[in-house]
Amino acid sequence: MRLRGRKGIREELEQQQDLVVLDPRGYKGKWAQVFGNDRPLYIELGMGKGQFVSGMSFKHPACNFVGMDMYDELIRRASEKVRSIWSGTPEGEPSNVRLALGNIESIEEFFAPGEVSRIYLNFSDPWPKKKHARRRLTHPRFLDKYCSLLNQEGEIHFKTDSRELFEFSLNAFAAKGLQMSNISLNLHKDGINEQHVMTEYESKFSKQGMPIYRCEVKIGETALEDYHRTKMEEF
Amino acid sequence: MRLRGRKGIREELEQQQDLVVLDPRGYKGKWAQVFGNDRPLYIELGMGKGQFVSGMSFKHPACNFVGMDMYDELIRRASEKVRSIWSGTPEGEPSNVRLALGNIESIEEFFAPGEVSRIYLNFSDPWPKKKHARRRLTHPRFLDKYCSLLNQEGEIHFKTDSRELFEFSLNAFAAKGLQMSNISLNLHKDGINEQHVMTEYESKFSKQGMPIYRCEVKIGETALEDYHRTKMEEF
Repeated sequence: MRLRGRKGIREELEQQQDLVVLDPRGYKGKWAQVFGNDRPLYIELGMGKGQFVSGMSFKHPACNFVGMDMYDELIRRASEKVRSIWSGTPEGEPSNVRLALGNIESIEEFFAPGEVSRIYLNFSDPWPKKKHARRRLTHPRFLDKYCSLLNQEGEIHFKTDSRELFEFSLNAFAAKGLQMSNISLNLHKDGINEQHVMTEYESKFSKQGMPIYRCEVKIGETALEDYHRTKMEEF
Repeated sequence: MRLRGRKGIREELEQQQDLVVLDPRGYKGKWAQVFGNDRPLYIELGMGKGQFVSGMSFKHPACNFVGMDMYDELIRRASEKVRSIWSGTPEGEPSNVRLALGNIESIEEFFAPGEVSRIYLNFSDPWPKKKHARRRLTHPRFLDKYCSLLNQEGEIHFKTDSRELFEFSLNAFAAKGLQMSNISLNLHKDGINEQHVMTEYESKFSKQGMPIYRCEVKIGETALEDYHRTKMEEF
């Protein structure tokens, strides 16, 4: 995504401590404290301009949401989106959502093993060249990280318009022995479900009639072994 | 498939006992005797006009092949195909392939538990209406049958041009806990692989640029339990 940043963004973000987390490393294992409750923690990796995470946080007040991205400008835009959605409500302020600046490469520095209930991957960069496969967010090396962060009932919800990335991802999930469900090769074939929160990309591509691919993944026993191994290594 | 049959087909088939099996129930558990060796048994369910099974049997002499379909006319056409492929060879006669007339609904009457090494499902009827879902050859009730027939290393190789059937099938495989691999959402994207034996449908659709979906399924532990249960019930 090409970003035209503005001067003084960092200062602007620093003034939004109720919503923006500029250094999530300080919160590893402490997200329940951040939100003041131990509701399930759902995180979106690569939230872009934040349409999905803001819509989800609004629709699901019984869960806590963290949207992550690595550019100041995206955090700024997402913060505007979150505030505009919440502004017309009695609460007025978003209490169950945070926007965190960070590189997903280092995700294990931001969340503790078992701290996360759900990971959303929406329209992640497909990195079409083979030599960049390791950067795809469903690459086995990322799946290992996710499995260690998710709790026993943890799930990954994955959505993309890229047939190539979806194919790669299905194979990666299957090779890890992860339990897939609700696999869809054309998510909106029966029309747009109003209950469904769409990302910016999704709205655009669906209107053009392009298929959206989606699946859910449970970490299951294989991943739990990784999780326990990670726990053991901490001691 | 609309079939214009000919008179006297049954008589014609009865004269081809070296190739055609009109009542496969008599061969359950005895296919090694039929072929005169215990090479791996690969079966194609719904072989149509037999392009795939005849090509495969020719390319893979170290395996035995049974092509199944339920119409006399298809068996006849497939027999012509098999003989034309083998006619130019030193052997002259097809020794590792049989064409069996039978309804896949009754597949457990044709093969014994553990007797089959691979099941090919190529361009099976997608039965698009929901009320016909039970007829799809990847419906869970068929998968149960397949799992009981396949041996420990047994695999299902599934290919279709129907996005809807592929989606249905992926979910069915996943729900059974079967191990998927080599999932492809566009099999011929890198051009046609000459090593690959195509079905009649596949040749046609690929030339039109339509994506072909494919995946392989290992029956794994879940299915092995079913297999052993089936074995137990025999005693």
